Amino acid sequence: MKICLIGFGAVGQGVAKAISLKKENIRNKFNIDLKIVGVSDSSGSAINQDGLDEELLIDTKSKTNKVSNYPKYGEGNIQGIELLNVVDYDCLVEATPTNIKTGEPAKSLTLKAITDKKDVVTSNKGHLALFFKELIDKAKGNNVKFKFEASVGGAMPIINFSKNTLPSSKIESIAGILNGTTNFILSRMTTEGSSYKDTLEESQALGIAETDPTQDVEGIDAACKAVILANSILDIDCVYDDIEIEGISNISSEAIKLAKKEGYLIKLIAEISKDNLKVAPRLVKKNSPYSVEGTLNMATLKTDLAGNVTVVGKGAGSLETASAILTDVINVGKSKK
Amino acid sequence: MKICLIGFGAVGQGVAKAISLKKENIRNKFNIDLKIVGVSDSSGSAINQDGLDEELLIDTKSKTNKVSNYPKYGEGNIQGIELLNVVDYDCLVEATPTNIKTGEPAKSLTLKAITDKKDVVTSNKGHLALFFKELIDKAKGNNVKFKFEASVGGAMPIINFSKNTLPSSKIESIAGILNGTTNFILSRMTTEGSSYKDTLEESQALGIAETDPTQDVEGIDAACKAVILANSILDIDCVYDDIEIEGISNISSEAIKLAKKEGYLIKLIAEISKDNLKVAPRLVKKNSPYSVEGTLNMATLKTDLAGNVTVVGKGAGSLETASAILTDVINVGKSKK
Repeated sequence: MKICLIGFGAVGQGVAKAISLKKENIRNKFNIDLKIVGVSDSSGSAINQDGLDEELLIDTKSKTNKVSNYPKYGEGNIQGIELLNVVDYDCLVEATPTNIKTGEPAKSLTLKAITDKKDVVTSNKGHLALFFKELIDKAKGNNVKFKFEASVGGAMPIINFSKNTLPSSKIESIAGILNGTTNFILSRMTTEGSSYKDTLEESQALGIAETDPTQDVEGIDAACKAVILANSILDIDCVYDDIEIEGISNISSEAIKLAKKEGYLIKLIAEISKDNLKVAPRLVKKNSPYSVEGTLNMATLKTDLAGNVTVVGKGAGSLETASAILTDVINVGKSKK
Repeated sequence: MKICLIGFGAVGQGVAKAISLKKENIRNKFNIDLKIVGVSDSSGSAINQDGLDEELLIDTKSKTNKVSNYPKYGEGNIQGIELLNVVDYDCLVEATPTNIKTGEPAKSLTLKAITDKKDVVTSNKGHLALFFKELIDKAKGNNVKFKFEASVGGAMPIINFSKNTLPSSKIESIAGILNGTTNFILSRMTTEGSSYKDTLEESQALGIAETDPTQDVEGIDAACKAVILANSILDIDCVYDDIEIEGISNISSEAIKLAKKEGYLIKLIAEISKDNLKVAPRLVKKNSPYSVEGTLNMATLKTDLAGNVTVVGKGAGSLETASAILTDVINVGKSKK
């Protein structure tokens, strides 16, 4: 199985690392031979049809910040979507940064690969939140696989879980914490009694919140994920604009203290059902499945027979997110047997 | 797919109810036609090769406490294992009470069905905790399916989750709350500050703890489940006697209060790894995945790539446990296509 990997930041490098660690095991267990034949970042590409060395890719990137400096097989002139025309691959792993305005470059990359009858695995949220139905229909029409577990919740495997593990029950709605940064901020405000502003600054210093924290703290990231879950698990045809969004930047330490006194916590909760698409701060009970702290993500599936079933996992992290991509890649490979 | 159901208490009746609610849906979605052709309780049986009416089975049982009073097709003289000789079935659903001393009647029923080349789905823990390897080997040798999701954690679908959802990661160990009754007692002692004795009595009055609570409060039930997870998920060849067990009957309200003051809760935790097979009270952090209250069960899988992934669900309940059985039945049906 020949992988073309576009986007070589933290997630892309995690994918290379995960393949390096696991390819032997995947060959033995699933009879799938994984090989990265092309990688692109903004500097250009590295291309070798016999397979690139994963550790050398990571090493080249970390030392020079340019994958095009990969010895012998670096290409300064081929980048992004152009790579898809010159490399012979089976599955595109798309790990470019999320753009919630246009969905690019993920959208063009995905449509190009699908039209060329290639399978696609992505960790990107933007194109899914804006054009879910178009992308899924295109994949179906071209009879290729299009998988996106890593786009929601990193290593909280909620999509595969919903599809594989509960066939006897109907999933009626979903509620969950889909953003690790805001969960970290709210958790710290609760344990430390600190203000939103101070806690945000602390989170930025720790590298948990970004310099421009808007996407996280205003609920945009969680809303993108909610759209993906609504479409893929509950079959609700919706886009980003259909979600009602309220972030956490107006939450005061007084509100948190008051909630705490009554046995509650304030969490940024995504609620997803046919009648309700919302991301907003909510009171949740202490020591309930919604009470998980730090950067953890969780999602509760409300089902008719099994009751509420919850999955908790790490919402971010290079190798953790890569584990979700690798699961999708393995499942694509298994489906071809 | 012809089901023979042995054991018609809360779980068995839940299975009949779940099939009644879902058979239309299962036919449409999976092209599997479910039909209960035989049911046995201690009074005898009901047998009809054209299919028994699920609601009438439940009604007969609830009004007369004897399934053998089922109109026209009741049989006072055929019971338990004898039913397997007279009914033509594809899959045994074994829902008799757990016996941790002998594993009977589950063991004999399961071995008989397997030897007769029938698939088996069980909610029973006793025979699995005592004879896991023998039963699995026998099923493999006879090329039949043997599934037991419902035996651990009711509607917390940890076994199917482990097998289907995380193919990219290695599961290195498991830790979890595998008994709902003790979790309820410890949760109430924490919120109410009440003594173990008073809280146990309250739980008995509520029908959450049994009149003889030994299996729950001494950790026996959790230990059985730990053996099943050790064997089935971690491939550790062990039996009930290999588990170190300590129950909760010595936990004082003072110990709980002290823990609480420091931000901890006391939970009955099963720890399962190659080097450690133990059920014992442990301190866990407030608002961690281990902090869930009431009768909830949870299990955290510690993996190499995906980090810690947790599943939380209802550990008991007639319909919830039946949902796990039905999932196994559907998967047996799908494997025959």
